Amino acid sequence: MIIVMKQNAQKDEVEKVEERLAEMGFGPHRIEGTGRVVIGAVGEQKIAFPTGLEVLAGVERVVPITAPYKLVSRQAKETSSIIKVGDLEIGGKELVVMAGPCAVENEDQLLTIARAVKAAGAQVLRGGAFKPRSSPYSFQGLEEQGLQMLETARRETGLKIVTEVINPQEVEMVAGYTDIIQIGARNMQNFSLLREVGRSKMPVLLKRGLAATLEEWLMAAEYVLAENNFQVILCERGIRTFETSTRSTLDISAIPQAKELSHLPVIADPCHSSGNWRLADPLSRAAVAAGVDGLLIEVHHKPAEALCDGPQSLTPENFEQLLAAVNPIAAAMGRSLPGKARPGMAEGL
Amino acid sequence: MIIVMKQNAQKDEVEKVEERLAEMGFGPHRIEGTGRVVIGAVGEQKIAFPTGLEVLAGVERVVPITAPYKLVSRQAKETSSIIKVGDLEIGGKELVVMAGPCAVENEDQLLTIARAVKAAGAQVLRGGAFKPRSSPYSFQGLEEQGLQMLETARRETGLKIVTEVINPQEVEMVAGYTDIIQIGARNMQNFSLLREVGRSKMPVLLKRGLAATLEEWLMAAEYVLAENNFQVILCERGIRTFETSTRSTLDISAIPQAKELSHLPVIADPCHSSGNWRLADPLSRAAVAAGVDGLLIEVHHKPAEALCDGPQSLTPENFEQLLAAVNPIAAAMGRSLPGKARPGMAEGL
Amino acid sequence: MIIVMKQNAQKDEVEKVEERLAEMGFGPHRIEGTGRVVIGAVGEQKIAFPTGLEVLAGVERVVPITAPYKLVSRQAKETSSIIKVGDLEIGGKELVVMAGPCAVENEDQLLTIARAVKAAGAQVLRGGAFKPRSSPYSFQGLEEQGLQMLETARRETGLKIVTEVINPQEVEMVAGYTDIIQIGARNMQNFSLLREVGRSKMPVLLKRGLAATLEEWLMAAEYVLAENNFQVILCERGIRTFETSTRSTLDISAIPQAKELSHLPVIADPCHSSGNWRLADPLSRAAVAAGVDGLLIEVHHKPAEALCDGPQSLTPENFEQLLAAVNPIAAAMGRSLPGKARPGMAEGL
Amino acid sequence: MIIVMKQNAQKDEVEKVEERLAEMGFGPHRIEGTGRVVIGAVGEQKIAFPTGLEVLAGVERVVPITAPYKLVSRQAKETSSIIKVGDLEIGGKELVVMAGPCAVENEDQLLTIARAVKAAGAQVLRGGAFKPRSSPYSFQGLEEQGLQMLETARRETGLKIVTEVINPQEVEMVAGYTDIIQIGARNMQNFSLLREVGRSKMPVLLKRGLAATLEEWLMAAEYVLAENNFQVILCERGIRTFETSTRSTLDISAIPQAKELSHLPVIADPCHSSGNWRLADPLSRAAVAAGVDGLLIEVHHKPAEALCDGPQSLTPENFEQLLAAVNPIAAAMGRSLPGKARPGMAEGL
Repeated sequence: MIIVMKQNAQKDEVEKVEERLAEMGFGPHRIEGTGRVVIGAVGEQKIAFPTGLEVLAGVERVVPITAPYKLVSRQAKETSSIIKVGDLEIGGKELVVMAGPCAVENEDQLLTIARAVKAAGAQVLRGGAFKPRSSPYSFQGLEEQGLQMLETARRETGLKIVTEVINPQEVEMVAGYTDIIQIGARNMQNFSLLREVGRSKMPVLLKRGLAATLEEWLMAAEYVLAENNFQVILCERGIRTFETSTRSTLDISAIPQAKELSHLPVIADPCHSSGNWRLADPLSRAAVAAGVDGLLIEVHHKPAEALCDGPQSLTPENFEQLLAAVNPIAAAMGRSLPGKARPGMAEGL
Repeated sequence: MIIVMKQNAQKDEVEKVEERLAEMGFGPHRIEGTGRVVIGAVGEQKIAFPTGLEVLAGVERVVPITAPYKLVSRQAKETSSIIKVGDLEIGGKELVVMAGPCAVENEDQLLTIARAVKAAGAQVLRGGAFKPRSSPYSFQGLEEQGLQMLETARRETGLKIVTEVINPQEVEMVAGYTDIIQIGARNMQNFSLLREVGRSKMPVLLKRGLAATLEEWLMAAEYVLAENNFQVILCERGIRTFETSTRSTLDISAIPQAKELSHLPVIADPCHSSGNWRLADPLSRAAVAAGVDGLLIEVHHKPAEALCDGPQSLTPENFEQLLAAVNPIAAAMGRSLPGKARPGMAEGL
Repeated sequence: MIIVMKQNAQKDEVEKVEERLAEMGFGPHRIEGTGRVVIGAVGEQKIAFPTGLEVLAGVERVVPITAPYKLVSRQAKETSSIIKVGDLEIGGKELVVMAGPCAVENEDQLLTIARAVKAAGAQVLRGGAFKPRSSPYSFQGLEEQGLQMLETARRETGLKIVTEVINPQEVEMVAGYTDIIQIGARNMQNFSLLREVGRSKMPVLLKRGLAATLEEWLMAAEYVLAENNFQVILCERGIRTFETSTRSTLDISAIPQAKELSHLPVIADPCHSSGNWRLADPLSRAAVAAGVDGLLIEVHHKPAEALCDGPQSLTPENFEQLLAAVNPIAAAMGRSLPGKARPGMAEGL
Repeated sequence: MIIVMKQNAQKDEVEKVEERLAEMGFGPHRIEGTGRVVIGAVGEQKIAFPTGLEVLAGVERVVPITAPYKLVSRQAKETSSIIKVGDLEIGGKELVVMAGPCAVENEDQLLTIARAVKAAGAQVLRGGAFKPRSSPYSFQGLEEQGLQMLETARRETGLKIVTEVINPQEVEMVAGYTDIIQIGARNMQNFSLLREVGRSKMPVLLKRGLAATLEEWLMAAEYVLAENNFQVILCERGIRTFETSTRSTLDISAIPQAKELSHLPVIADPCHSSGNWRLADPLSRAAVAAGVDGLLIEVHHKPAEALCDGPQSLTPENFEQLLAAVNPIAAAMGRSLPGKARPGMAEGL
C-alpha cells in the first residue's frame, strides 16, 4: 500500500507513520515529492482496509495496491475453472442453461415447466422453495415440500437442480435435495451463510448483490473458497442505478471484468436484472457476446398467474425462441448451446 | 392499483384484464381516455407487486396506489412510537446516544471506551461481537466471548448494550446478553434473520441497506412488526452512490420521510455513512436538525490500532466535542441530549 | 394522468381537484376506492410534470400515464428511421462504424489514423476539435484548425466526419466542416445547443448524459426533432453508477429499450463507457448482440502519447481485431459490417 | 502520481515507464515490492488524467496523488472567501437567503413574490427568465422580458437578483440585468458557458451537476476562477441516486467536504434536491447545521398554478415558517439569518 501524507505533514508525523508500518511488519519506503511525502509499504502480509493508518496525524489517505482477494484470483489459478455437477460441466465450451420458475408452486406447475425447459435444451432446473420477498405478506415459498417437488422433477426429467438457501441452518437440508446451491443477491454479504455453503462442499451459484462492487462480489466468493470449496459460479444479475425503466441495470462490463480477474465461471440472469421478459432476449444475446458461460432464465407456463415475478418470466415458447436467438451468437463466440440442433438467427428470424 | 393499457389495446384485452381483476377480488373500474384505457382496481386486499397482470396482452404497466407496508405506517398508528429499553426511552424528547467501538477487541479496550462514553453522556454502548466483514481474512469478532465482555461493561457502567446479530441461529444467544439487537445494513433483507429477531421480542435497531429504497427499508421493519414485535428503531447509515469522496452518502432526506411515513423512531449513523470521523460532527448536527431521535457513534480510544473501522472512529475527546457541538442544535429542535449540562455551541465555539 | 388522493382527503378537496382539472381542460373521472379516491384525468393535451396539482390539499401524488415525447416515439412513426449521410445509411442492415482519435492533435496524427480506420472498414471518422474537458488546464482542442484537418482527412480518405460542438454560436461554423454533429454527454441537456443543432438540419449524434434516464435522453432528442430535424442518432455511452472498476456502466438494456420506444437508430460507444480499451471488444460484441445500429470507437496510433483518453483508445491493430471479433456477431444478428470480407470469429479466433 | 506495475511486469517494461516519466519531466522513484514494482513520479507539473501511461505494457494503473484543482483549493487560499454583491456579503457570519419563483411568469407574479420574500428577510430574489426544461413543450421562460421584470423587482424592493444563463452568447445581456449569474445543474460542465461567465467578472452561483462528483464540481468552479473571476458561490442541489422517494438526494456530506477542500462559500437548494416543498424545512435546517453559508428557496404565491416546479415551491407563509424554523439552528451554529428578529424554534414551535 501507499501512504499519502498531507502537504503540510511534519517530519515527526512522517516518522511516526514509518514506525507504525515497521511495527505492522512492512518495510517503509519514503518518497520525498516536491509538494509532499509519499510512503510505500513493502511486505507480503495481507491487511484489511481501512488500516488504521488513516487516522495518524499528517496522513491524507492510504491507497491499496493489491487486490484483497486471493483464491478467486487469476493470479492464484491461471486457467479458467470448470465446475462439475455430475456429468455437467460449467465453464467449458458448451454454455450452461438454467431455467425454471421463480418459485415452486405445486408439483403440476413444476413438472410442466421442467419438461418444457428440458425439451428446449436446458440442463438445470431452477425453482425457489425458500423465497426472499421484500414483503412479509408475499408468498414465501413451499420450503421443504418445494424441495421434494424439485427432487421429483429431477427424477422425472434428469435435469440438475439449483435452488436458493437463505438460512445457514437450512444449508444441510437444502444440500440434500439440490445439485447447486444458490445464494441470492440480497444474501451476497450474508457471511454466515457463505461460510456454511462453503463448508457444504456443494457447487454454489453466487449472485451479485444489488449494490455490490465487482471487488465485493469476488470477496464474497472468496468466503466460499476460503472454506476449501472451489466450486463457485458467479452470476451477474444487475445493479441498482438511477435508471427506472428497468428493475436494475445489467452490468455487462462486469462479465469480462470478472472473467479477467477471476478463474471462476460467470453466468448472467437477464430476467431479474431487467424485470421484463421482453428484454430477456437481447440481454441474453448480449451476455453471451460478452463472454458468459451460461444463462439463468425464468420460465413459467402461465406468467400472469405466477406467484412471483410473472412479468419477468418467459413462457416455454418464448424460452425456445430465446435459445434460438442466442444460438448463432453462441456459435459466433465459438461456444455451443446444449440440446437440439437449432437454426441460426440469421436464417431463422 | 391502476392498470394502464397500451394505446392499441383491443377491446377483448381490456375485458380479459377486467375478468382477471374480478377473479382476484377487485372491482374493476374502466376509464376510457382519449388515447387509451386505464382500469382502476378497487378492493381492500393487499397483493404483492409485480402482480402478474403485467404480462396480460395489451397491458402497458400496473401502478400501485397504496404503500405495501401496514404495521409500520403512520396510518396504522398516528402517534410516534417510543421504544422502551428498561428506563431508557427512544423516540421521546431526549435524544438517545449510542456509542462505542466498531468491534469488541478485549475487556480492557471495551471498559476503557465504555467508561469514556458513559462519562460523556451516552446511554447505550455499541460494540460488535459478530462482525460482517467484506473479507474472510479480516477480524470477524470475538463472538460469545465478546458478548460476555459487553455484559461486564453493562454491569460496570450501567450502559444499555446494542450489538449485532448476523445468524438466525444466534439470535437467542445474543438476546441473552444484549438490550437491543442490531441488524446490520448488509442483512437488512436477510428475512430469516428479521423474522427471528421479530420472534425474540427484543428491541431491534434496523440499519438501512446500502441499496435499499425507503420503501424496502420500511418493508424490512414490517417483517419484524409482523412477528408482533413493535420495538423497531430505524437507523439511516448512508446509501451507495457514484460519489467516492465519502464511503457512502448519508440520505438526510430519508430522515424526515421515514418519520412522516412511519411511527417508528429514526436514528442516524454518521460514522459508517461517511467512513471519516472528521465528518461525524457536521453530519450529526445535520441529522439532529433533520429530526432524528438519536445518534450511533463509533468511539475508540486508539483509532489507529482499532481492529476495524479506525478511520471512522472518534476518540473519547472528539466524542465529547461532538456532543458539545450537537447540543445547541438539539436545543434548537426542542430536544435535549442526555448526560451532563453542556455549553451551547454559539458560546462554546 | 391519475391523481391519487390521500386516504383522509376531504370531499371538498376532491372536488377542488376536479374543478382544477376541468379548468385545465381535462375530463375528471372519479374512482371511489375502499380506502381513498383516485381521479383519472381524460384529455388530449400534453402538460408538463410536475403539474401543480401536486400541491393541492388532499393530493398524495400525480401519476403520468403517457410518455412526454412525441416525435421520437414509435407511436409517431412505426418504422425504424434510416439516417442518410450522403451515400451512407445509418439504421439499415449494415452497421455503421465510426472511429478515430478522441482529439484532433495535428494533421499527421489525424491522417495516419484516418487511413488506418478507413482501411479497416470504418465509414465515419471521429475526432474532437472542441473538447469538453473536466479541467481547464487540459488540452481543449485545436478548434477551427482541427476542423480544417478533419476536412483534409475527409478529402484524402472519403470518410464521413463526425465531430462535437459545445457552443451554440459555433454550430454554423462546425456544420460547415462536418457531416454529422455530435452532442456530447455533458451537453445532453444543453437545450440552447440542442435547438441550434436542430435548426442546422444536420445529422446529429446525441450521446446520453451520464445521469440521464432513458426518458430524458429521448426528450433531448425531441428538442432536435421539434426543430423539424429528424436526423438524430442516439448513442449509449454509459451511465454513472457506484461501480468504480469501469469509468461508467454501459447500460446495455437501454439499447433494446430505446429501439422499442423510438424509431431512431442507436449506436454504442464502448470506449467512453468503460474507459478501458481492453473492454472495447466484449462491449462492442455485446452492443451488437443487443441490437445497436453501429459503433463509435476511439483509435489512436500511439495511445500512450494521446493528448486525451489514451487508455480507452485502441491501436489500429486492435481496432482491426475488434471488427474481426464483432463480425460474426453482426452476421448472427442478420447484420453486416462495412469494409472488407472478414473471417468469422469461430474460425478466426 | 504513483504508477502501479502488474505483478508479472518485465524489467524492461518498468524501465520504459521510467523513461517515459523522465520525458514528461518527472523524477521516477522505484519501489521494489515483494510482489510487484511501484513507481513514484516526483515533480511539480500538473498533468491531466488519464495520463497515457496507463496503456504502456506492464502498467496496471496510475494513482493520482494531488487534487487536480488549484485556485479553488484551500491550499491556494487558507481563509474562507467572502463574495461581495454590493453591500451583501456571502460567506460571512450572516447567512444569505435567496428566494423567489422557479420562473418569472409576469410582473404581478414577480412583484408579489418579491415583496413577500423581502418582507420575510430574503436578501436576494431568484427567478428564471431562461429555463432549461427537459421537454421542448414546457414553458421555456420569458427571456429578456423576464430579465426586465427582475430589474423592476430589484428597483421596487432593493433585493439583489440571481438568475440563470444557459447560452454563452447571452451572458453579457444577462449580466446587464442581474447581480449574480446562476449556472444550473445541467450546465455545470458546459465549459463554454463557464468560461464566459468567468470573463464576465460577475458573481457566479454554480450548482452541482446531478451526476457530478465533488471533484468535478470543484473543477467546474476552477474554470471560472481560471478566468480570473474569484466570485464563485457553490450550490449543493442533490445528486441522482437509486432512491425515488425524492427527486434527487441532497448530499449533505458534500457541504462540509466542499468547505474543507475549498475556500469558496457553499449554499444549499433544498427545494430542487427533494422536489417536495414539505422537505424544504428539515433539509434547510440540516444544511445550516452542516455548515452552509446560505439557502436558495423556491417561493410562489400560488404553487398550484406555477408554470414550473410548483410542488417544490413554498408559499410566502411557508417560507416565513421555514426561516423561523431555521433561525435557532443558525443561532446554534453561531450564525444569523437576515431580516427581522425571529423567535427561536424551541420557543416558537
